[in-house]
Parts: sequence; C-alpha cells; structure tokens
Amino acid sequence: MASTHLKIDRDQSARRIEQDVETLGGPEYTRSAEAICRYAYTPEYRRTLDYFNAAFEALGYDVFEDPVGNFVTRNRPAGEPAFGIGSHCDSNRNGGKYDGTLGVVTALEICRLNAEHGLDLPLHVISFLEEESSGFGIALLGSRIAAQRITEEELEGAKAIDDGRPFFEHAREAGYEPERWRESIQILQNLTGWIELHIEQARVLQDTGNRIGVVTAIAGITWVDIRFGGRADHAGATPMDFRVDASIPAARAVVELERLALEAGNGAVGTAGAFAVDPGLHNVIPGEARVGMDIRAPSDDLVDEVVNGVTAFVKSASEDRGVSVDVSPRFRMPATPMDARIVAALERAAAQTGEPHMSMPSGAAHDTMCVADHVGTAMVFVPCTDGISHAPEESAEPADAAVAAEVILNAIREL
Amino acid sequence: MASTHLKIDRDQSARRIEQDVETLGGPEYTRSAEAICRYAYTPEYRRTLDYFNAAFEALGYDVFEDPVGNFVTRNRPAGEPAFGIGSHCDSNRNGGKYDGTLGVVTALEICRLNAEHGLDLPLHVISFLEEESSGFGIALLGSRIAAQRITEEELEGAKAIDDGRPFFEHAREAGYEPERWRESIQILQNLTGWIELHIEQARVLQDTGNRIGVVTAIAGITWVDIRFGGRADHAGATPMDFRVDASIPAARAVVELERLALEAGNGAVGTAGAFAVDPGLHNVIPGEARVGMDIRAPSDDLVDEVVNGVTAFVKSASEDRGVSVDVSPRFRMPATPMDARIVAALERAAAQTGEPHMSMPSGAAHDTMCVADHVGTAMVFVPCTDGISHAPEESAEPADAAVAAEVILNAIREL
Repeated sequence: MASTHLKIDRDQSARRIEQDVETLGGPEYTRSAEAICRYAYTPEYRRTLDYFNAAFEALGYDVFEDPVGNFVTRNRPAGEPAFGIGSHCDSNRNGGKYDGTLGVVTALEICRLNAEHGLDLPLHVISFLEEESSGFGIALLGSRIAAQRITEEELEGAKAIDDGRPFFEHAREAGYEPERWRESIQILQNLTGWIELHIEQARVLQDTGNRIGVVTAIAGITWVDIRFGGRADHAGATPMDFRVDASIPAARAVVELERLALEAGNGAVGTAGAFAVDPGLHNVIPGEARVGMDIRAPSDDLVDEVVNGVTAFVKSASEDRGVSVDVSPRFRMPATPMDARIVAALERAAAQTGEPHMSMPSGAAHDTMCVADHVGTAMVFVPCTDGISHAPEESAEPADAAVAAEVILNAIREL
Repeated sequence: MASTHLKIDRDQSARRIEQDVETLGGPEYTRSAEAICRYAYTPEYRRTLDYFNAAFEALGYDVFEDPVGNFVTRNRPAGEPAFGIGSHCDSNRNGGKYDGTLGVVTALEICRLNAEHGLDLPLHVISFLEEESSGFGIALLGSRIAAQRITEEELEGAKAIDDGRPFFEHAREAGYEPERWRESIQILQNLTGWIELHIEQARVLQDTGNRIGVVTAIAGITWVDIRFGGRADHAGATPMDFRVDASIPAARAVVELERLALEAGNGAVGTAGAFAVDPGLHNVIPGEARVGMDIRAPSDDLVDEVVNGVTAFVKSASEDRGVSVDVSPRFRMPATPMDARIVAALERAAAQTGEPHMSMPSGAAHDTMCVADHVGTAMVFVPCTDGISHAPEESAEPADAAVAAEVILNAIREL
C-alpha cells in the first residue's frame, strides 16, 4: 500500500482533459450540428477511436480492438495483469460532450500521469462500444458482449436504427469479425480491478457542493405496470357512493410509492413516471387507470421491499372499492454492489485531496455493471450542471475530472 | 286541488308508450343502422315530428312549429294558459331509443289519458330542437333559443357538423324562418308550469329499486383544469429529497376531490376524469401533470365549496414541494332548483301510486334548465338499465314510463 498521497498538477490535467473533450466535441466527431451524435461503425465514431488510438500510442501503449469493436489499450503485454479504467465514447443521438467520453478522456489523463510521475502502474483502458444504444437500440451492447450477457439470437436479431440492416453486417463492413464475439470476454481477463469515471447525470453533487462522488452500488431496477379496472359512468349523474372510479386507487398508489421509497431510505427511489386514465374526459368517471412505476435501490432486498409494499397497497386500496387490479413487474435488473476494497481506496484518496466528496449509489445503469461480473469494480462521479445529461446542454468541469484523476490514480497505487 | 288520486290503466299506457318508442326506433327514423341517430333538419327528424304531428292532431290538438323548428302542440287556443310537458326527440349520433324521445312519447300518452278520463286539463307539449348537439355542436339549442339564452352572433357562427354550412342556411332550407328566432320565446309564454320526463342516465334508481325519481334540482357544473409544474429529472439518479415531482400533488388532488365531495354531501359529486403526466415515461420524474375535474351539486354554494376546497388544497400541496400550480375554472353552469310546489305535487302523486320512488338531483343538463328561466319546472326520472345512455344499448321500461304518466297527470290535476 502506498503510504503517501500523490498530488498531481490539477490545472495542467484540467487543461489537457478540456482540450481532449473540446476536440472530440468538434464537427468531425459528431453526426449532428446541434448535438453530439456518434455511434458504432460510423465515420464519426471511427475518428473518435482513432483520436484515442493516436494518443495512447504516443504514450507507448499497445492498442487493439476486440472482434466487435470494443477499444482496448494497455501498457503491459497481453496476458499480464493490469488495473482497468475507462468508460464509453459513443453518445445518445442528441447528446452532450461529457457522458461517457469524459471517462475515457480521464483514463487517458491517468495514463499520462502514470508516465509523468514514473509510477509505471500496469493499466488497461477500455472504451466500450454502444453504451447508449444509438446504433442498434441495445444499451450496454459492447460491455454485454464482453461479459457474455447477450445471446447469439439477440445479436442476430439486432438491427441498425438507421437502415434496419443487421448488426453483424454493419460490424463486418466496419472491418470487425463479429461472429467471434464470444472472444470479447478476453478484454475483461487479467484485470485486477476496474474503475469508471462518469458524470453523475443528477444534481446531488452540484446541490450538495461535492466535487467527487464515490459510487457504492449501481441500483437494481424493477419496472411495475399496474392496471386498475373500474366502471366508466356519467360524472354528473352518478352519486359518489355509486362509483367504481379506477383513478382513486391509482392516485393513492402514486402517493404511497413516494411514502414507501422514503420509508425504505438507503438510496431507494420510486417514480410513477407514467399515469393515464380512460376515457380521459372531464365528465366521465375513469373506467381504467394505468400507472407505470420505476423502482430502484442499491440492494435487491430494498427494491423488493418497495415493490412488495406497493403491490400489497394497491390490492387492498382497490379491493376496498370494487376496482380490479393487475400488477405486472417487468424489466428487472439486479443491483450491482461495488467492490468494498476499491470503494474504500477511492474514499481514502478522495479524502486526501482535501476536496468535498461523498459516497452515493448510482441510479443509472453503466458498463461497469457488466465488468462487475468478472472483477471487483467501482465508479467515480463528477458533477454535471443541473443534472442535465443526454442533451446538448450537458456540462461538466474539467477541473473536477482532474480531481477525479488524482483520486483514481491514488486508489490504484494503493490497491 | 284534486282530492283523489286517479289510477290509470298502466298496462294499456305501457303498451302504447312501447309502441310509440318502438316505431320511432325503426329504420325510417334513424340515419344509422346500428343506433338511433337523428337530428335537426334531416328527413329522419322530419318524419319523427310528422309522427307526433299526426298523433296529436288525432287528439284534436293544435300543432305548430316555432321559427327554428321547436315542435309545439296544445289543446287550448294560443294565448290561453296551459301546463307544459315534453322533452326532445333528437338523439346523439350513436344513441338509443329512450333519451328524450321517451319524454315526448309519455307527454303524448298523458294527453291521451287527459282525454280518455275526461279531465280536459289545459296542456302544452314541447319537443325541443337539438338537445343533443348532433346537428350543430350546440347542446340544448332549441330550448336555449326559446329562452333567449343564446346570441345572434352564436347562431350566426353555428355550423353543421355534417357539411360546415351555417345553421341559418339549414334552417331556411328546411322551411323555417330562423332570422325570427327571438319570437321563439312565445312557446314558453302562457305556461302555468313545466314537467319533463327523462331516463335517469345513471344507475341510482335501478340499484335502489325505485321506479320513479322526482328531480329536486338540476346540478350546477364547474370544470376545473389544474396544471402542476415540476422538474423532469432522471428517475434513477435523483434521490427522493431532490425531486420536484409534479405528479404527487396531482395525485393527492384526485384523492382530496373525492373526500371533499363526500364531505359536502347533499348530492355533490366531484370527478377527476382527465389526468395526464409529461413526459409520461417510467424512468422520468413527471415534470408536468394536468388534472381535469368536473364538480357538480344541486346548489351553486355547494359547487363553490368543493371548488374552493380543492383549489386551496392543491395550492398548499404544491407549495410544500416547490411545484407550481395553475387552477383554471371554466364551463361554469349554475344550478337550477326545481319549483317546490311542483316537486311536492309530484312527490305526493308518486307516493299515491304505491310504487317505490325517491327524490334526487339531476347531475346531467336538460332542456328544463332553460324553461326554468320563465316558469316553475320539475322533472321525473325513470330507470335505465345499468345507467347506460347515449348508446344503442340504452334501455328503459315502458311500464315505468306509464307509472310516470300517472304521476305527472295527477300532479298537474293537483296544481
């Protein structure tokens, strides 16, 4: 374990990070004039990989791409252990400069610092393909392929959003050998750990005045669709005690979901993002109401607690008044705890920067979930303005990423 | 005041009412093969008026139509006082056989009974034009014209739903003199009172086992549109205490509206028939929620009590959590109390039939609201199956209408 904290020249790192980010925000690297828009197998994405290729080769790193196009670079020969860092450099179709790309750029900066400070830590950088699903409608595509979290059938069924042609065709035309996708697992082998830097995509760090967030878990997610069935009677002619109004238990469920999530605490969140009534006219009592809920928590037990609580509630609230109710959970994704040792090393390094920092769960999904199948992982968040992401207005501070680079570098030294 | 209750031959009346209703449910009288569909200035509507014309002339009544086509018939010379009965015989575009038409048919039966029993009560029957708005999109059109509850500008702007041509053109082509519409007020003059029979359009009579409803008031209506403005953040990445979720106060408002209507009692009803959230995705916290409410009660004070209650509630429930709120009341229609003397006479007559009956408000609007501007009015409801109306499945019992004919005839004798 390294005994002393290494303080980097943060201003210099911030300048270099800013220059990389701004370069990759230029017109050569996006398919849109109004936003960052780049995705797999397009010229703009190719130029982005070439940019990193040149930068890492200048540092003396070996650069290669796996059979589908995940970008990998390392300062040790293949087969030797190294610590993994990175993120993704594709964007959503109306995206900003920071989501994903800031993580790869900061990984590059960490590699520069590793050389400049003569540390010679063994490092292995990955920029995963298609995190955002912009090319083929499948999120985390590259990391799912590497982690073998996908089937041959799913890949065969994957079609390009732009032209409907198969993933395999596009990958082959781009020079890859996608039929060898199972070999992509090799890019996760010989890793001694993994840390991904990402913008937070929410406003907690900004609003609490913290520059660094150490992620303790990536939340598990369950979506719950609830259909309430009542009777669509005349709103004027039907007395209150003759009604079977589907909207009342539906509305109570929205309120109860918030109460249950607050009661569960520990990072649990519950959102009734979708709510619709039929026929939806002022003067007709709703005969049907549908609520779509998104429930997340850093542990699966906590997700289950909220899901079970809301299920029991809607059944009782509906039965009371003769409303039928169907509860359908779907899109269940388990929680991914981060590696306690890596988290602890990041927290110690963050504390030694003297900058405000906090530990927090990630409510959003990240490539790190797939990496976590194979090796201990953690993530570092930096603030983004007003929590805005997936939009051209997305904004973050290179200076915060420089602090994150210092944190990650020191954590890897310690591990 | 007539001292003894006159019992009619209800079976005979039920048969005659059924025959009239079934005849007018035939293919000559509807523009649709699947439903009753008839409205002003169409051949099917003309044939319907001709049917009544012949039936009343057979009883020796004078028959005429006012300058826009309201149908009027009476057994006294113009200018002499008479008691008014009737309803409307147009339908909505996908209607049933009973809504409106049953009231005119039962008025005809009352006129027959008046003759057969040698009562010679002075009677004045009206079948109002365009109650259902099927022709020109304006509900209660004929009774609003008669009551002068409409302006020249509104009439000039009225266009046919079928061909977009003006109301005035259609009326002239049908042989009327619509420019003289102000003279229609004459059909409401020299009335000593007014009673309209109508199907209930709800399920209260059916579910309580009553055959007759004596209407005590036609409810006042206010529609309230409420817009809640929050912040559309990421459902996973935004902790519970960082949210400005527009759907929470909106959902609470739905629950509170029901509570306020129940608390107000006395026939007050409140319905949140419309509810929408934006963007309406599972994984985005609603940045906006819109609720559309319909609030009715037999008195305007009671309507105001509920409207004010819900307005105060949503303001407080939204301010608590930084949600902005706009409350826009619209479509305000005052309550129409029924005439106490006529209501009492109907209640006494109903009691003397020996049949189960009740007093109740009308939650729906009726032509009687316009008549009430000029003379004391009341209404009688008969059950309709499962509360269904404005649909081909609409169904009611001629035997109940026969009881209603006996009730109305006895009430008029007493008055």
